[in-house]
Amino acid sequence: MVQCHPVDKTLAALADPTRRGVLERLGQGVASVSELAAPAGISLTGMKKHLRVLEDAGLVRTEKVGRTRQCSLGPQRLEDLQAWMDSYREQVENRFDRLEELLERTKGDAS
Amino acid sequence: MVQCHPVDKTLAALADPTRRGVLERLGQGVASVSELAAPAGISLTGMKKHLRVLEDAGLVRTEKVGRTRQCSLGPQRLEDLQAWMDSYREQVENRFDRLEELLERTKGDAS
Repeated sequence: MVQCHPVDKTLAALADPTRRGVLERLGQGVASVSELAAPAGISLTGMKKHLRVLEDAGLVRTEKVGRTRQCSLGPQRLEDLQAWMDSYREQVENRFDRLEELLERTKGDAS
Repeated sequence: MVQCHPVDKTLAALADPTRRGVLERLGQGVASVSELAAPAGISLTGMKKHLRVLEDAGLVRTEKVGRTRQCSLGPQRLEDLQAWMDSYREQVENRFDRLEELLERTKGDAS
């Protein structure tokens, strides 16, 4: 399956509790790689792998500052994912509304 | 990484355009495996694999009816995912609000 839609990358990046933890932490402000790795209880190398996935999805931005790498939230802010979810929920809800209408009408016919 | 949180399964299941297509189709009503496979342009076996992932995440429910397998939307309706996104966005927005306040106050000090 070709990963063509930007939502694919967002979803795959978010499908890991460590990576969601990183986003939540960066929501509070900029952090270095070691500041992210320590509370997550993983190695620097492990954290760098997670950061690459998040960076590739545009969810995180990293910048070399002196000898450390500073991480912050990236340009992709879950808008695409929210848009897909909104349109999906709307479709499903519309269907339930139509079903309810049909049930109401059928009830009317029976009485 | 242990996949412990239900949101992990939801996100991994959604991170594929074919599976999102299945959910959108089932949002319109019940369908058999072959009715899902044909428009997606994939084999029955391929579709069954995707359905297992969706079923495992609670997003789809399948039921054997005679010789066909009927698929419908499952009990998991993206509420968990929406709840995580809402709390994440709120955190990030709160932070931006606090930054804005700080900038306002700093501007006040400078004038």
